[in-house]
Amino acid sequence: MKRLAVIGSTGSIGQNTLRVIDHLSDRFKVFALAANSAVDRLAEQTAAYRPEVVAIMDSLRADEFRKRCAELNVTLPEIVTGEEGMAQVAAAAQVDIVVSAAVGAAGLRPTYSAVAAGKTVALANKEAMVLAGELLRHTALRTGARVIPIDSEHSAVDQCLRSGQRGEVRRLILTASGGPFRETPEARFGGITPEEALNHPTWRMGKRITIDSATLMNKGLEVIEARWLFDIHPEKIDVMVHPQSIVHSMVEFVDGSVIAQLGTADMRQPIQYALTYPDRLPSPVASLDWASVARLDFALPDNQKFPCVGLAYRAIQMGGTAPAVLNAADEVVVQAFLERNVPFTMIPKIIAATMSAHQVTAADRLESILEADAWARAEARRLCSSV
Amino acid sequence: MKRLAVIGSTGSIGQNTLRVIDHLSDRFKVFALAANSAVDRLAEQTAAYRPEVVAIMDSLRADEFRKRCAELNVTLPEIVTGEEGMAQVAAAAQVDIVVSAAVGAAGLRPTYSAVAAGKTVALANKEAMVLAGELLRHTALRTGARVIPIDSEHSAVDQCLRSGQRGEVRRLILTASGGPFRETPEARFGGITPEEALNHPTWRMGKRITIDSATLMNKGLEVIEARWLFDIHPEKIDVMVHPQSIVHSMVEFVDGSVIAQLGTADMRQPIQYALTYPDRLPSPVASLDWASVARLDFALPDNQKFPCVGLAYRAIQMGGTAPAVLNAADEVVVQAFLERNVPFTMIPKIIAATMSAHQVTAADRLESILEADAWARAEARRLCSSV
Repeated sequence: MKRLAVIGSTGSIGQNTLRVIDHLSDRFKVFALAANSAVDRLAEQTAAYRPEVVAIMDSLRADEFRKRCAELNVTLPEIVTGEEGMAQVAAAAQVDIVVSAAVGAAGLRPTYSAVAAGKTVALANKEAMVLAGELLRHTALRTGARVIPIDSEHSAVDQCLRSGQRGEVRRLILTASGGPFRETPEARFGGITPEEALNHPTWRMGKRITIDSATLMNKGLEVIEARWLFDIHPEKIDVMVHPQSIVHSMVEFVDGSVIAQLGTADMRQPIQYALTYPDRLPSPVASLDWASVARLDFALPDNQKFPCVGLAYRAIQMGGTAPAVLNAADEVVVQAFLERNVPFTMIPKIIAATMSAHQVTAADRLESILEADAWARAEARRLCSSV
Repeated sequence: MKRLAVIGSTGSIGQNTLRVIDHLSDRFKVFALAANSAVDRLAEQTAAYRPEVVAIMDSLRADEFRKRCAELNVTLPEIVTGEEGMAQVAAAAQVDIVVSAAVGAAGLRPTYSAVAAGKTVALANKEAMVLAGELLRHTALRTGARVIPIDSEHSAVDQCLRSGQRGEVRRLILTASGGPFRETPEARFGGITPEEALNHPTWRMGKRITIDSATLMNKGLEVIEARWLFDIHPEKIDVMVHPQSIVHSMVEFVDGSVIAQLGTADMRQPIQYALTYPDRLPSPVASLDWASVARLDFALPDNQKFPCVGLAYRAIQMGGTAPAVLNAADEVVVQAFLERNVPFTMIPKIIAATMSAHQVTAADRLESILEADAWARAEARRLCSSV
């Protein structure tokens, strides 16, 4: 029986994680749940999964959580709060696997905490590897922690890599849906509205990641993640546009053979894979319906129309705190775009300008990474307000 | 340094095997070459690869081989002839890997000989597993022989299976180009000429296998091979039409994840994979050109238009000598079709009639298998002549 800490249990990945555990209750027990502020749902999850500890990021909501538990007649678990509480459950001695599914930079500290404690980490939080990939990799090497990605692209790469050995990889091919503007002429880009950009063709996701899909920045961030997750040179990571999002990613080996992973858009598959690795267990996830798959398209990305992927490669090359700056600037400018303060075409420009203004430092401590993150947010906000 | 016996060295797979060895000469040494009757090419190969033994199936050509070697100033290797000679080199103590690439039933005896001697067998000969899959599987379990397929579909399955464990497979999906009549209305099938049927859309192959591609019987035979190569229940083997032949086959695991292998139509990839397994080594095989791949289509096969796949499943179900009868009847009726003695639509009918007339016996000895093969040829000829 493996004991889990689910960080970000009330979000989409967190909820899907609990659904996976529902049918694998003979193998997994929830030791801890952690959430930002959605205490109603957290109380319901506490009633259903009876964790021994609950962490609430927003300490002001702890009393509300206690009240909801009382209404639900649930025996109160131990309650810890704030960043310290989150980090504490991620490193708890009783925990075997940490599901790191908090959204945004809030996921960084508990992820680091879990890796530093040598846990198996099922990683859905994107920021952790983007901001602190090098630090996490070196820490994992020291502690023996194993990081297994939940993100569908990286889970696909992980699954494909098993068909060979690490030194036998010619390149990784991350697939991208191409977003809603794949076929939109560049001349039309200046007039793209937030409503158009939020209309993603295949996946339903949060607002920032949906805009990141439209600019292809999400793929740039995934290139950075892949660079650290798989310790692979960025020149060996390619991006391929694949509108149907059925092929989740591919690995080409040195002998010319390409291994691809395909599946439905059901996140329970990569979540379960990360939890049961290296085993695969029966799952209620539906088989691909080939009658409806029918056709898969592939195309090289248009780097002129979508400069964000190139910015991510540049951030890897700059190294140190540059990926953190890329990520922070993107988050700020996407928000400004959603608020109609900057046009779609300014998104890559402001990110590039923020990166150019940045003095790169080593990303060997969380503090220096978070400092760069804060600096980049301020700088990007300044640039947005002067548009 | 691994020592190879290349059975069928003058054929297409044999020649490609030697090309693979050309760039891996630090790892592989040709100990023996074996061919049916193409002694001119065999002498050239002897000059280039200096095998210690050469086997010639057609013993009447041995003198001609000696003469050609003298003309080429090649020191004569030891020469063995006939079925005995072929079987002898396949089992020679000095040999580590046997490449079984003889065409047709002639490949059966040396393949069995290699498996019985516990060799690693890189298997391209289709008939071996179709006619004697059960016998070869049981023999391999006894001797510790390892059979690695060279056929692109089965090599793909082998590569995909590495992403999980054997008990975790939900199904194998063998891809089929669908042949030249994929979109031809069934009403037109009666008038299909040998010229039309020989016009295969993607692969250049021998005449029988090209017709087998047009009837989809090649995929039926591959289902039988897969059944024994991977010891998998036939209900877990599916066929999917994929006209571009880029995805060579797929494996679906119990967790809903599908792993696919993709590549160019260059047989050197699966040959090298079989020789270097479990390692992958750099290869001159070109990377897939994604600009030209662009689009991949998939469709379920039309079992009414193409009944041959169903006949293969029936042969597996009948068991014993039935697959040998299916294969022999197919070879005879395809020849009759090529000679314009039977129409295209009679191919599955005569195979089915031959199978119905057959008294299945156990396929636990080569002799009973070859008897069934001979019986089926006679029966199918009789049926063809009465069309």
